[in-house]
Amino acid sequence: MQSVIPVNLPQHSYNIAIAPGSLDQLGTWMQGTEAYPLKLGKKVLLVSNPTVFQHYGERAIASLEQAGFAVATCLLSDGERHKTLETLSQIYDAALTNRLERSSTFVALGGGIIGDMTGFAAATWLRGVNVVQVPTSLLAMVDAAIGGKTGVNHPNGKNLIGAFHQPRLVLIDPQVLQTLPVREFRAAIAEVIKYGVIWDADLFTQLEAAPQLDQLSNLSAELLQAMLTHSCQAKAHVVSKDEKEAGLRAILNYGHTIGHAVESLTGYQVVNHGEAVAIGMVAAAQIAVALQLWQGTDAQRQLKLLHNAHLPTRLPSGIDLDAILTSLQVDKKVEAGQVRFVLPTQIGAAIVTNQVSTTVIQQVLEHMQAV
Amino acid sequence: MQSVIPVNLPQHSYNIAIAPGSLDQLGTWMQGTEAYPLKLGKKVLLVSNPTVFQHYGERAIASLEQAGFAVATCLLSDGERHKTLETLSQIYDAALTNRLERSSTFVALGGGIIGDMTGFAAATWLRGVNVVQVPTSLLAMVDAAIGGKTGVNHPNGKNLIGAFHQPRLVLIDPQVLQTLPVREFRAAIAEVIKYGVIWDADLFTQLEAAPQLDQLSNLSAELLQAMLTHSCQAKAHVVSKDEKEAGLRAILNYGHTIGHAVESLTGYQVVNHGEAVAIGMVAAAQIAVALQLWQGTDAQRQLKLLHNAHLPTRLPSGIDLDAILTSLQVDKKVEAGQVRFVLPTQIGAAIVTNQVSTTVIQQVLEHMQAV
Repeated sequence: MQSVIPVNLPQHSYNIAIAPGSLDQLGTWMQGTEAYPLKLGKKVLLVSNPTVFQHYGERAIASLEQAGFAVATCLLSDGERHKTLETLSQIYDAALTNRLERSSTFVALGGGIIGDMTGFAAATWLRGVNVVQVPTSLLAMVDAAIGGKTGVNHPNGKNLIGAFHQPRLVLIDPQVLQTLPVREFRAAIAEVIKYGVIWDADLFTQLEAAPQLDQLSNLSAELLQAMLTHSCQAKAHVVSKDEKEAGLRAILNYGHTIGHAVESLTGYQVVNHGEAVAIGMVAAAQIAVALQLWQGTDAQRQLKLLHNAHLPTRLPSGIDLDAILTSLQVDKKVEAGQVRFVLPTQIGAAIVTNQVSTTVIQQVLEHMQAV
Repeated sequence: MQSVIPVNLPQHSYNIAIAPGSLDQLGTWMQGTEAYPLKLGKKVLLVSNPTVFQHYGERAIASLEQAGFAVATCLLSDGERHKTLETLSQIYDAALTNRLERSSTFVALGGGIIGDMTGFAAATWLRGVNVVQVPTSLLAMVDAAIGGKTGVNHPNGKNLIGAFHQPRLVLIDPQVLQTLPVREFRAAIAEVIKYGVIWDADLFTQLEAAPQLDQLSNLSAELLQAMLTHSCQAKAHVVSKDEKEAGLRAILNYGHTIGHAVESLTGYQVVNHGEAVAIGMVAAAQIAVALQLWQGTDAQRQLKLLHNAHLPTRLPSGIDLDAILTSLQVDKKVEAGQVRFVLPTQIGAAIVTNQVSTTVIQQVLEHMQAV
């Protein structure tokens, strides 16, 4: 089983490869083929965190060195609270110490946080060097590693500082998910369900056919490969049509409007990103139903999938509703003071709107408070 | 007297306007014309430093508000040593506090440092908002404000962290140069002479015809307008042909290879950027003559112009030659370990080469040591 999904963008197209066992061929993949050499230079800065590096660092380095790359390593502290300008400086320092050049390549080996920070460092080091994404979490595989959004958090808001910087290659080895903590696995399923709701009805029904979505061992290898392929295809398709989020790409933010507020207000620690998105999807679904854009029965089907993945569908206890409403105003998705929401209209389709009154948001959030 | 120079780039063309008294029309310029509205949003974050703001802040704000913009202000400490990620955070904080949106605009009112930092903040805030450059130093007018290079310094190297982010408008009011310190004025003349050497023989001979280049009051208004227009045209021309410095644009780095090393090693304080470039131009000229690429008589003509502007043409005393050679290796202009130099071949033309031996560099630097 192997899928290669092209992401077609003017000036910087690239491939997403989904191939079991491919971590040991990272160096070969980075060389490209004879007909299409990737020209990624000779020096590589491998950025990771201690946990991931302990499992997969040696294999990645061995593969890179075997293919002729000179590898330097930079390990960053794990966790969303370290996704800051300060941590970013450590990548810059490592790039300077190891004399990375304009033709050199940063390799992100890790989850979405490592991918976002490494991507942003690559976007801004010497005004832009190559980056290769090797996502090791399911969330990064289906979302963060694809599409070129990079960045770090501001103390008062997630991903407020960043850049668009497309990777030269995304290499996904599903086998590394074996070591992924179950909570992170479930969180990523939220994004997979998201693609089903907003884009891919076929994926949605495949997920409904699965008896359980709560841990890797309950999934067949075929379903896993299908989930990865469908999710990456959905994201690649949307990104190809709208690289800089001028329009269509915004639908990928389904569940993220309320989700980001919840993450931010709980200090990025109580709920993780995927859990926050799950909560945000429930909120957006309820708003869509309240505005009569979506059928209540479809919203129930979504809720069932989320429950099946053991994902949270209510607000964390103690969170202040007014604080959520204020937080929405500083989100990137605000335009002329109006908060933008992505709302489903059927399984497999969604619209973007800024026509949601504060009253409706408030009513929906009240119904979602912790019991 | 008024010149409007178009910078033609795929997807983001813009104008450079050189117009005496235009500071008081900043708001109108930012609206654009009825046929070509600039669509710069309603909110403006005006970034400046206390010195410049004291002179021109009120007039800029009055003009912006009269045109209907809501203006917030962010003042940064003056000086190259403040061009850091840490100072950048102050712009981000101001953007967050004042709820700047994706459609909003950052306005840089100041010299090159303010322009570079504001441009980089705009490149990375919400993954990119509009920026308008209103340069108040001669150096920023003829160089930094044009072309979209933005960034901050790493403790160990200048502009190592940055991005390409084109402004939506560059508005140059030559009248604001009245308050520019004479040392900064002279430093900028180095860049003007640079355009004459590498690109514009006509500009070079106009400069040779001037009796003095050492202070603003010794220049006719016509020569000043001509200098600004020729310099901006040269830069606009080069940038239009090669936005991301894949080739041609590199010639703009004439004098910058040794120049950056000298700036960096003296802690950005002993010599300013233009003075460092003057020193670097002398070094590059001597290298070109040593390699028999350029006539010694032309190098002498360049030297005479630099003297005429009272610019330094020798290394600062106490600087270590070996340290310069080491510093060249960490510059952005290194490729596969080879340092790139821009070398003149005649008045008005230059080439880029990495074929300069360390021996030649060393000999030239030895001859340029302080007497």
